[in-house]
This record gives sequence, C-alpha cells and structure tokens, in this order.
Amino acid sequence: MKIRTKTEHFTNPLYLESGRILEPFDLTYETYGELNADKSNAVVVCHALTGSHHAAGRYENETKPGWWDGIIGDGKAIDTTRYCVICVNTLGSCFGSTGPMSPRFPSSEPYRLKFPVVTITDMVRAQRFLFDRLGIHKAHAVIGGSLGGMQALCFAIEHPNFSGRIISLASTYATQPWAIAFNKIAMEAVLNDPRFKEGQYDPKEIQEDGLVSLALGRMAGHISFLSPDSMAKKFGRNYVDTDGLYELFGRFQVERYLEYNGHNFSKRFDPLSYLYIIKAMNIFDATRNFESLHDSLSHVRAKLTLIGFRGDLLFLPEEMATIKKTMDDLGRAHLAEYIEIDSKYGHDAFLVELDKIDMHIKRALEAKA
Amino acid sequence: MKIRTKTEHFTNPLYLESGRILEPFDLTYETYGELNADKSNAVVVCHALTGSHHAAGRYENETKPGWWDGIIGDGKAIDTTRYCVICVNTLGSCFGSTGPMSPRFPSSEPYRLKFPVVTITDMVRAQRFLFDRLGIHKAHAVIGGSLGGMQALCFAIEHPNFSGRIISLASTYATQPWAIAFNKIAMEAVLNDPRFKEGQYDPKEIQEDGLVSLALGRMAGHISFLSPDSMAKKFGRNYVDTDGLYELFGRFQVERYLEYNGHNFSKRFDPLSYLYIIKAMNIFDATRNFESLHDSLSHVRAKLTLIGFRGDLLFLPEEMATIKKTMDDLGRAHLAEYIEIDSKYGHDAFLVELDKIDMHIKRALEAKA
Repeated sequence: MKIRTKTEHFTNPLYLESGRILEPFDLTYETYGELNADKSNAVVVCHALTGSHHAAGRYENETKPGWWDGIIGDGKAIDTTRYCVICVNTLGSCFGSTGPMSPRFPSSEPYRLKFPVVTITDMVRAQRFLFDRLGIHKAHAVIGGSLGGMQALCFAIEHPNFSGRIISLASTYATQPWAIAFNKIAMEAVLNDPRFKEGQYDPKEIQEDGLVSLALGRMAGHISFLSPDSMAKKFGRNYVDTDGLYELFGRFQVERYLEYNGHNFSKRFDPLSYLYIIKAMNIFDATRNFESLHDSLSHVRAKLTLIGFRGDLLFLPEEMATIKKTMDDLGRAHLAEYIEIDSKYGHDAFLVELDKIDMHIKRALEAKA
Repeated sequence: MKIRTKTEHFTNPLYLESGRILEPFDLTYETYGELNADKSNAVVVCHALTGSHHAAGRYENETKPGWWDGIIGDGKAIDTTRYCVICVNTLGSCFGSTGPMSPRFPSSEPYRLKFPVVTITDMVRAQRFLFDRLGIHKAHAVIGGSLGGMQALCFAIEHPNFSGRIISLASTYATQPWAIAFNKIAMEAVLNDPRFKEGQYDPKEIQEDGLVSLALGRMAGHISFLSPDSMAKKFGRNYVDTDGLYELFGRFQVERYLEYNGHNFSKRFDPLSYLYIIKAMNIFDATRNFESLHDSLSHVRAKLTLIGFRGDLLFLPEEMATIKKTMDDLGRAHLAEYIEIDSKYGHDAFLVELDKIDMHIKRALEAKA
C-alpha cells in the first residue's frame, strides 16, 4: 500500500457558517490505494479532534503507523486494493491544512486569535472543494469516528448526494454538555497560562517542552477517552515503583499515564488549533440550521451505519441510537442501522476495539447503496 | 436547634499511618442537639472533601444553611431532638482543624509542604481523641458520604466497637483510578501555577481573587459530581445570552456554571489543603493494612448501611455493592444492607436527592444494633 501525502492550495473563497470568509486556504491530505477509472471508489475517512490525515501505513523511520492502520490497508476492512482511501486534515488543525497559525493573507503573520471559528459544516465544505479538484464527485463511502463521525453525519445531511454510504462511530448528532464540560478544562487551562501569552506565543519556544496547560487539558481529555472500567483494568490501584505512598507527590500508575500522554501531546499539537477544534466540536449541532433532528435527517439519502460503544462516556451510545430512532420515525428504517458494541474501553473504543468493528465496516462498505 | 461551634486543642501525639507524628493538633467541630446523660446518643457525621463541620443550621446572616441541613435538624431524618449530632472538620482541611497552613509547632510558620500526608485512618483516629475528651466512648451511629463515607467505613473496620450503626453513602472501599484521574487534574493545575509558588504563596493574596488553577481543578471535580444525564437536564445546549455562538470564547451555560463554581471555590478553599485531602482520598484503601477486603470487613461488628447511587460516576454503585457482597460471603449478610438509589444526579446525589435517602437513614438509625 502506497502512502501519498499532498497539500492543495485553494484561492476561491470559503464562505463559513459564521458569515466570515476564509481565503485562501490549504488542505493537506493523504491517499492509500488507487482511484478507479470513473473515480467512484473513493472512501473518505474523517479524523478525530487531535488526529491527522495520516490514517494508515508507516512513513520511513516511523515507529507507529497511522491512527487507523488496523482498519485501512491491503485486504483490511477498508481494503486499499479495492478502494482509494482519502483522509484530509481538518480545517483549523495544525498538520498542514489552514489553521490559526497559518499566515493571514496577504500578510505573512499568522491569524492566531483572528482566525475565524470554523464548524463541522465548514470542514466538510472545504473537503468538497478538494474532492471536486480531484474529480471525485461521488464517494463510495464516508466514514469517521468522534469528530470524524460528526463530519460523516454532516456529509449525510448537508451533502446527501455525495456518498451512498455513511458510517459514523462514537459520535453524536449534537455535542452534549458533559463533553463540553471536559473541553472547558482544556480551554480554561490554556487561556490562563502565562506562556500562552493570549495567543501571541512563539510556537518554536513552546514546542520544545510543550505548554503544561495544554498537557493538563489533554489529561482531562484522556479521562473522557477511557472509562471507570477500562482504567481499573489498565491500571488498578498500582503505584509507580519509585514513588512513595505517603509522599504528597507520589503517583499511581494512572497518574503517570496521564502525565505521559498529556506532555507528549503538548509537544505535537498547537494550542490555538486545540482551542479552535474543541470549539468546532462544542458547537456541533446537526439540527442548528434545521427545524429539528427530524427535519435535518429527512435530507439523508445515504445508507447510514451508526456504531455506538457501550462504555463511551463522552458520546453516549444513546446519542447514536437517537439518530437511528429518528430515521425510523421518518419511515426510513431501511436507510439506517444502529450497532451497539459491547465495550468497556470508553470513547477510545473506536480506535482500539478494531476486531469488534471491522466486520461491520466491511459489510457496510459492500452494502448496496 | 442550637448550633455550637468549638475548637479543641490536643497536645498528645497523633501517630500517623505514615509513621510520622502530628503534635500538637486542633479539631474544630460543630454539634446540634443535646448529649443525653449516658452520652450514648451521639451521631457522628463525616463531611466530604471540601465540606466543613458546618453540616446543618444557619449562622446569623448566612444565606445558605449547612451542607446537610435537609437531613439534620429537629424532626428531620437525623432528628436533633433525639440525637446529638457531631461533625468534625477533617484533619488537613482549612476550616479550623490542623492542616498544611497551620503553624508548625514550635514555630509559628505554617507547615505548607512539610505537613505530613494524612489518611482516612488518621482523620478517624484524630476524631476518636476528640470523642474521648467529650466522654463519648460509643456513638449511636456514624454516617457520611463520599470522603465522609470512607471515614464511616474506616470507623466500622478499625474501630469496630465504637458505633453500632454505620451508614456510608456514595463512597467506596478503595478509590479507583477513574476518581484518581479526576483529582490528578487539580493536583497538576495547582502545582504548575506560578501563583502557587511551590506552596509559598501568601494566603491573603490568593484568597481575594482565588487561584485560577484551583478553580480549574474544581471544574474537573464538578464534572465528576454530575453526570451526562444531569448535565443534559440542567443545561442542555443552552448558550449564555450575551455570548456569541461563532465567537471563540462564547460560552454554553454549562461552561458558565463550571466557571462560577470553580472560581467561588478557589476563594474559599486553601490550595494546599485541597492537595492534601485529595491525596488522602486517592490513597484510601480499606484493604491496605489487611490481607484482603474479606479480612478487613471481618472486623466489622456494626450494622452497615451502604447506599449507592446509580448515576454516580465518581464512586460507582458497584463499589458499594462489593462491600455488601463481601459481607455476605463472610456469612454476615445480617450485618449489611445495600440500597441502590435510582438517581441521575451523579456523585452529588447524596447532597441533593435527600427525599430519596432520608427514610433509609431514619430507619437505619432506629435499627437495633
């Protein structure tokens, strides 16, 4: 399987949901597999909050492959000998696509806090520009988990003719206050960090050791990615060998795990991008520009596969089931299936419990649309 | 009902679980109701992490009464015309009992980070000194929720003859990694706050506007006190009227709630006390000085009433049920009852859903021991 990484530059204006305009903008994306002659075999994969376009395969010298490598590849559930997989770095992110640290044309200075708020709708609209340029006017499927699942649902509602198959995992139709509350921790931590300098930080300076506040926000995120059960199984009450039980700063293994993941994250992710993408997640509401969820889902033409995970405490499986129920109420039961995966992994399940989901994804991709 | 608030000074050494000694120490406590002639009608109420000895009644000019005023009072579930209720500010706290900002005898300088780690065992031992001085050698009951529930269970295991009735709510036999992870956010936030000054802060200076980092830690706490359901019911996706949806710092009502509660808290609670008490919570493990939970519970002589709440995501009801199950395994089913309250309130339920618990408490207090 060959990995191709590219960046496309767009000079046409992107009219954002907020009324603001983004112009010009770049999108960085990766493909695996070959487009067929009529360009009908594209499978669009949408990444989560802190993910990137690097969904599969391994770059030279890379220790870990892309984030969904277990699902995407030759002979895998998303079979790259049959499909051409495309994964686009979302607008607002920091891995090549335009985000708050991109130059604010015509200046060469970064936008920083002058970057416009982007929504899931905007992220999806931007992707359509790219697909149009690539000659992909209809995709075989769109698939994504979490923030990627929001994008997939947005494709189904706002671009009903673009894809015959939509697979959304561990996501929701509208972000609920519990998830917003977790994001709040990161938002507050970063904003109050003197090293954030109200957005005027030197990116090189903070990349070296990472913003502690961003690490902290990420730790809160990691709590929500797991669950009481998965934490108990993973760490128990085990103590870090070198730390003392009666020392105030002695640590349990779960604490060391949070520190490790938080600090690593803060070195690889841009704080402003984080603020903008959690904003996009917070204000995601598939009903916003419609009368109701019934109204928005009445636009769906694709076959919708909704996958929820029982242990997910960030986007509860009930939220996915609500989408299915609403489709049923609309007399469109034949267009929507809901699969609830028994998992104790928490929100991360869609990245971890691949053996429980890959047959569902394979089947959904092969379904007649 | 008369409120009496007092502080007792102890000069005898308190031998801590860690091997360190605390000497001298103060305990501040409050009583409601009158001790009977043989001092057998004391009901010991143990407060939670950030609570205080002010459990009931209202001081002059106070807008809100004590934290369990709905349960404690004349004619209420814990009837102060029958019982003498005593609530002691825990060791390590900041409302009068000895904690990290108390002077380190013989110096008049505060302990700060030289304060020893105290455990639930230590908090309970200290209380026994007070009760001894008051002539209370056997209590009618011990009752508490959350950290107070840990103390109640500790009374049952380590002081089996002290009370015939133990009621523990929304608590656990050993703090699980999920709860430790929530506490980690507060710990890291405070430690990395330049205004915390590695514990050398001026308390007056930070009390005025509160440590932002402590507010942040408390916000993480508030997430765990609620639940996805209760947040959805309480706030929905409602936006703060004056805030813009497409403004990066526009806020949902849930965010304003977290800010408000976090900041208020940071003005009334001492950061070092917070670190020491979450440490005590984290390392609570009723099996630590025993071979197993079976072994520790085999010491129980009291009637144990265990109350769990279905929506509690901090201390899962399963954890309380485990105590009941272990008592059953020990052939002591007659000594333990487990009540699971159907609540969507999250961990806060024991402070909020009083109409669902007060009859159980009343009954447990009247049971023959």
